[in-house]
Amino acid sequence: MSLLPAIKGPADLRQLPASDLPLLAEEIRDFLIDAVTRTGGHLGPNLGVVELTIALHRVFDSPYDRIVWDTGHQSYVHKLLTGRQDFSRLRAKGGLSGYPSRAESEHDLVENSHASTALAYADGLAKATQLLGQHDRHTVAVIGDGALTGGLAWEALNNIAEAQDRPLVIVVNDNERSYARTVGGLAHHLSTLRTTQGYERFLALGKGALQRTPLVGQPIFDALHGAKKGFKDAFAPQGMFEDLGLKYLGPIDGHDIAAVEQALRQARGFGGPVIVHCLTVKGRGYRPAEQDEADRFHAVGPIDPYTCLPISPSGGTSWTSVFGSEMLAIGTERPDVVAITAAMLQPVGLAKFAEAYPERTFDVGIAEQHAVTSAAGLATGGLHPVVAVYATFLNRAFDQVLMDVALHKLGVTFVLDRAGVTGTDGASHNGMWDMSILQVVPGLRLAAPRDADQLRALLREAVEVTDAPTVVRFPKADIGLAVPAQERIGGVDVLQRTGPAPEILLVAVGTTAPACLDAAALLLAEGFTATVVDPRWVKPVDPALVELAAAHRLVVTVEDNGRAGGVGAAVAQALRDAEVDTPLRALGIPQEFLAHASRGEILEEIGLTGTGVAAQTAAVAKRLLPTRGANQRHAG
Amino acid sequence: MSLLPAIKGPADLRQLPASDLPLLAEEIRDFLIDAVTRTGGHLGPNLGVVELTIALHRVFDSPYDRIVWDTGHQSYVHKLLTGRQDFSRLRAKGGLSGYPSRAESEHDLVENSHASTALAYADGLAKATQLLGQHDRHTVAVIGDGALTGGLAWEALNNIAEAQDRPLVIVVNDNERSYARTVGGLAHHLSTLRTTQGYERFLALGKGALQRTPLVGQPIFDALHGAKKGFKDAFAPQGMFEDLGLKYLGPIDGHDIAAVEQALRQARGFGGPVIVHCLTVKGRGYRPAEQDEADRFHAVGPIDPYTCLPISPSGGTSWTSVFGSEMLAIGTERPDVVAITAAMLQPVGLAKFAEAYPERTFDVGIAEQHAVTSAAGLATGGLHPVVAVYATFLNRAFDQVLMDVALHKLGVTFVLDRAGVTGTDGASHNGMWDMSILQVVPGLRLAAPRDADQLRALLREAVEVTDAPTVVRFPKADIGLAVPAQERIGGVDVLQRTGPAPEILLVAVGTTAPACLDAAALLLAEGFTATVVDPRWVKPVDPALVELAAAHRLVVTVEDNGRAGGVGAAVAQALRDAEVDTPLRALGIPQEFLAHASRGEILEEIGLTGTGVAAQTAAVAKRLLPTRGANQRHAG
Repeated sequence: MSLLPAIKGPADLRQLPASDLPLLAEEIRDFLIDAVTRTGGHLGPNLGVVELTIALHRVFDSPYDRIVWDTGHQSYVHKLLTGRQDFSRLRAKGGLSGYPSRAESEHDLVENSHASTALAYADGLAKATQLLGQHDRHTVAVIGDGALTGGLAWEALNNIAEAQDRPLVIVVNDNERSYARTVGGLAHHLSTLRTTQGYERFLALGKGALQRTPLVGQPIFDALHGAKKGFKDAFAPQGMFEDLGLKYLGPIDGHDIAAVEQALRQARGFGGPVIVHCLTVKGRGYRPAEQDEADRFHAVGPIDPYTCLPISPSGGTSWTSVFGSEMLAIGTERPDVVAITAAMLQPVGLAKFAEAYPERTFDVGIAEQHAVTSAAGLATGGLHPVVAVYATFLNRAFDQVLMDVALHKLGVTFVLDRAGVTGTDGASHNGMWDMSILQVVPGLRLAAPRDADQLRALLREAVEVTDAPTVVRFPKADIGLAVPAQERIGGVDVLQRTGPAPEILLVAVGTTAPACLDAAALLLAEGFTATVVDPRWVKPVDPALVELAAAHRLVVTVEDNGRAGGVGAAVAQALRDAEVDTPLRALGIPQEFLAHASRGEILEEIGLTGTGVAAQTAAVAKRLLPTRGANQRHAG
Repeated sequence: MSLLPAIKGPADLRQLPASDLPLLAEEIRDFLIDAVTRTGGHLGPNLGVVELTIALHRVFDSPYDRIVWDTGHQSYVHKLLTGRQDFSRLRAKGGLSGYPSRAESEHDLVENSHASTALAYADGLAKATQLLGQHDRHTVAVIGDGALTGGLAWEALNNIAEAQDRPLVIVVNDNERSYARTVGGLAHHLSTLRTTQGYERFLALGKGALQRTPLVGQPIFDALHGAKKGFKDAFAPQGMFEDLGLKYLGPIDGHDIAAVEQALRQARGFGGPVIVHCLTVKGRGYRPAEQDEADRFHAVGPIDPYTCLPISPSGGTSWTSVFGSEMLAIGTERPDVVAITAAMLQPVGLAKFAEAYPERTFDVGIAEQHAVTSAAGLATGGLHPVVAVYATFLNRAFDQVLMDVALHKLGVTFVLDRAGVTGTDGASHNGMWDMSILQVVPGLRLAAPRDADQLRALLREAVEVTDAPTVVRFPKADIGLAVPAQERIGGVDVLQRTGPAPEILLVAVGTTAPACLDAAALLLAEGFTATVVDPRWVKPVDPALVELAAAHRLVVTVEDNGRAGGVGAAVAQALRDAEVDTPLRALGIPQEFLAHASRGEILEEIGLTGTGVAAQTAAVAKRLLPTRGANQRHAG
């Protein structure tokens, strides 16, 4: 490492002679492979954008010029070039975020990691720049071909094309992939652009044709433009973008720094919206990644960089894999069950199902809205779709769940992976919203399994429902040991009673069951007896749960979900509606954006552990149940 | 009327000789103008699709073949041709829905009126048809050019193009409008297609070129296809759709029944996804509508069909117009305030602002996601955007509000018109979700004004907030008289006390203030004293409200919003968190999809009137406050 450590910011990068840049790129790749295989993180995407990022920071003057990264997991190189080279605690508590972070650097503007937003942000920035008369200030959006399949990107393109006098540089980082291979008509179109040879060389000859300077003059521009148009169809049928009114430059070899720089300089001077189409290879320069056809090491946990085997601290079975196996079994029994994923076939555990039943598996791309509404169509047509997405991404299709599925009383099952605290991916990946916003959806039924048996059982109950949406949600974690029930009352599993007529009802939602059982033991030591129950289906609230609440003196709900409007709020309302006056306290995730840290660290911090639940419950119990508690403490 | 009354269903229509169809079309127009000007409803869109709908039902065999209408307000003609000719109670309680309705007819499949869904539904239906081997069953989606600007439509197009062997007929009803003129790059592209002459005639010559029958054979098909491609660029640059891999037929004169029928028959036989591009005129055949450049009589209340003046029963001032005037005033004072609308400039009251500040007004098309995320960009760029949308449509951009605005702590103001019960447009237009789902958004502040003064004041407070999203919501209604406050405690307005130390705290959210004041009077007559307060800002819960609750014996919250997770639930949680044990009851809209009826009828039915609030409150008070109530009843 001779060059990289000396780069403290983009200014240093711009000082480097062009001849040094290949070595710098090599150093960056070595750094990334070494660092990310230690900590885990998004390796493949960042290896693909090394040269592109170097070129961006040489041509544009960040932070005055604004560079917006779509799906910010491709921003590691950007971090390295903007003064952040300590990757030792990447994605760990107190360390660098795995995404852009406004707290980290003035070079970061957009920190969420939900895809397809960059063009819309950039459109807003470009509008602001224009209105404020900052005519020397450039706006750049970097978006992958995968993210272009998202509806928000289309809405933005359509709007960007509306104003031909508003400068905006759109860099399409085309690696033919989102998480896995990009799907759909757009992918075919990009592929056509990609396989066209020579157009970029032609562009180099026609350099200046895109300049809109008064020196060249409009007639000359038009003539050159006309000439280019004439050649265009022979070289590159970039029709779609041009049909929308967007100028197109490309395709460019995204690993050729000089070529990318040249294209970006042309684009920067154009004076209107322009697309720069760069071809890159995800995982570039790291053979194991390049050879991994499935996802090109999109994201890795810590791995051994030489053997390329994952270093897994747990070795346990994940919720995802249990779902995947059961889904395969259901698919074998039920030919009417189909699976839908939004560019996440492997991460959500549908790979086995897809292998067995490819014709019944639909990967719609990064397009959660379409995942949900096409599921509504499939259900109307007589099939039972299972839509498997990350919990946080279902927010993208809330309206479709409500209007397109629930209003039409359709049997669609949603499987929400990464529900609850996910941790290391930061605020935008925590799945802490679903059990709140889905409460408002009439007819929807929501299950939170506590262990593998319950996941299998609840999934099977869910796909039996034909007249309403059903949801099964679970976290990104090992699935842990079975938590047996002592009895079932209505649909509610009683997991434990720590006395003959317990005073506290601990309502353990899904994965909080072990913590609640621990808490019950700790509470007993303080003299409070408890019944620990798992409602299994948390929406609608089970009448049996209301009756159980009436038979206790304090109800405490515990959920791996935001406290606002979650299961606790729903149970509280059910109690009020039934005129059950037992006091209730709702424990859950504080309604805040959580900084990145491990799932365990966060659960500890917010009190969703056995100790935490016991302490919070005891504090309330001591106030509300003083006599009984004191008696029992004496008795104990 | 000689023909229309005899059409009991599509079979009757197919029996008619082609020569009768122009007369039938004329009868349908007369019927619509007469009926819709009496009842109110969507006149313009339906006048535009008379011939198109006739052709659809002659070529396709509904309900076996499935016709999906996007934004179902264009389905009146479809209703007339499928056995529903009693329009006397259109959109009124117990009468015909203003949208497709599965309860009304087996010919209706998709009943929601959120735009851009038809292609995704149809993709699901086409997939189901294919998987179930129903090879003779056709799927048709009818979508307007306006709805194509929505991201969901793009996601669907991209997926539909993926499978070239899956039949699906997409009818683009191109009237250059959504509500008002369609915006964006797509609109320009469609305009190019539209102005191209002769292509449709050429297609007629090349008839058969699109047949994929074994008789013709692939080589011949390819040759013909190649020939067509050769001519294509000269006649119609339909590039965009073809770049995606979608076959394109058009443009067709959508008012020429024979031409539309011929194109639909070609499309039906094609065997893959195909776009039929029909040009229509919104408001066709009704001069006042055709001449109304603003919105072509998109939707009308009852109007006099001769004078064309609205018959308004109230003549009052709307919430929308008060917002519009204040927004103009704010715009004059604050050059940093910009306005964003999603194809709804006039309906949300932004027309005056747009006229005064066109460069600061952005109509993004039917694209709520882009409205919100581009607002985030504008705010990042130093401006203060006001995004004005219908409350129910904000659901489309929930994720963007949460991740793109709130996570980034940006000052964006959302103005939600048509919040609460709207009524006549049915379940999908009621704005009963916003105050629930927005509760989960960290940092977001939400205001519900009770009268015009408060609307103006709260809007001004909202646009002062620079580090968080703010929301101001109000209903589709006349704004009513001023409701003065007696005092302000913290941020809470005390509207009335019906005794020296009242026992009941009535929390009146926004427009429920008059009902709560009425209820307080009725409760007093029953011996219960009450304090009526308006919290103004309902999120976050004001600490002063918690203190007020602690000083009363019963809290009743009243909101024009779904009960699940709404303001009542938030106040209940705030009380629990503060260890305030005053019992609370939350009144609001039952968490169900409400059938269409007038706003007044629905509020009456669900108990959100003075009488209803009083009755529900008294029932609880009699149980919880028996002594005091009895005493007071004696005293009174």
